[in-house]
Amino acid sequence: MRPQFILFGDSITEQSFSPGGWGAALADTYSRKADIIVRGYSGYNTRWAMFLLRHLFPLGCIKPPVAVTVFFGANDAALSGRTSERQHVPVEEYRENLIKIVHHLKECSSSMLVVLITPPPVDEEGRKEYARSLYGEKAMELSERTNEMTGVYANQCVELAKELGLPSINLWSMMQETVGWQKKFLSDGLHLTEEGNAVVHKEVVRVFNEAILCASEMPYDFPHNLEIDEKNPEKAFQQQC
Amino acid sequence: MRPQFILFGDSITEQSFSPGGWGAALADTYSRKADIIVRGYSGYNTRWAMFLLRHLFPLGCIKPPVAVTVFFGANDAALSGRTSERQHVPVEEYRENLIKIVHHLKECSSSMLVVLITPPPVDEEGRKEYARSLYGEKAMELSERTNEMTGVYANQCVELAKELGLPSINLWSMMQETVGWQKKFLSDGLHLTEEGNAVVHKEVVRVFNEAILCASEMPYDFPHNLEIDEKNPEKAFQQQC
Repeated sequence: MRPQFILFGDSITEQSFSPGGWGAALADTYSRKADIIVRGYSGYNTRWAMFLLRHLFPLGCIKPPVAVTVFFGANDAALSGRTSERQHVPVEEYRENLIKIVHHLKECSSSMLVVLITPPPVDEEGRKEYARSLYGEKAMELSERTNEMTGVYANQCVELAKELGLPSINLWSMMQETVGWQKKFLSDGLHLTEEGNAVVHKEVVRVFNEAILCASEMPYDFPHNLEIDEKNPEKAFQQQC
Repeated sequence: MRPQFILFGDSITEQSFSPGGWGAALADTYSRKADIIVRGYSGYNTRWAMFLLRHLFPLGCIKPPVAVTVFFGANDAALSGRTSERQHVPVEEYRENLIKIVHHLKECSSSMLVVLITPPPVDEEGRKEYARSLYGEKAMELSERTNEMTGVYANQCVELAKELGLPSINLWSMMQETVGWQKKFLSDGLHLTEEGNAVVHKEVVRVFNEAILCASEMPYDFPHNLEIDEKNPEKAFQQQC
């Protein structure tokens, strides 16, 4: 009965129901209004995400999701020749894959709200600290991602959203406007702290509100308990079921 | 593709995706293994829940939920003659309604895991403080719920689970084993603090594990990223899709 919002992305989406996560916060915001379904795949880039598309969003679905957030790029932007090379996807292909994802989603439902989210900025020092905490002296001296290169992917994402007439959230530039973003928003130079999660939650709600998916204006799925007449409860349910 | 676990209940279920909530924690525990769907209805008792049954759990559903938590009683146990009287349901009817809910769920799917959860204990002092914070001097001197009466409902719930051969979680007695449960587990004498939510999460996971729905033994919905050969990614997806 409730509309579905699907969160499609990589580990930053997969982890969005961990404590303070933006997905759980969204589920709370849309409590009794919409179902928030998480489809986050840790380590995935857009190339691997392509294999999931027809499974997660089958064509001809009777009740397609009303909104989908598409939140990739953090792994695509891993650098060639460094430790996460296997996840690297060239920026041109990242762009093409995003186009294919959007086209597929719009084929599922032309009225679906598709929101493109850029990867967050990268704190290279934080990545190195994290690698040292895992591998000690053996950790590579060079971060497997740079903030500059992730910015190239973020720009492509935002430019593409403009071309396609879709809303986007430029986390990469937005987060860097705050002094101390490196530790404030990122736990290991890449993934989000609770404050970083709060930024994503706030921005997704803002975009949904602008697209007339405002929680306060959406109906409850069943009568609010105060609308139920305790002497005649069936009345409220007859009206709203 | 993922099995569905549905959380069916009142406000303690509805609020289970708020910060530190047990529903969100469950979604995190079963990340990429199961979908946690929240069907909590603030203020509802089992009498009103009956109206939702065939809508939330339609008979003949091709893919019924694999597990459902049934978590009512906090409102049924509101006392007759006090401020929440409209929510009161006699304990015999509460028991009958639980039986009808269980029968309906088992009719949807005889293999469905149905878990009955008792209401948590009531801190009457906490309820009065909460009423005073809302209504000041006008607040009634008598709490609208008592711990003793809620215990009667909790006992019925646990006894019924035994009779029906279902697992149950006796929050009412379990929480009272901890010194200071009144403020440690309850935020307003009735709803859960983060620590109270953690108790529910831990217990639900325990019961699910015992019923062979252990997250660590359930498959990922798609290949783990480390199983993907970057030179030949289709292979992993052909095997697992």
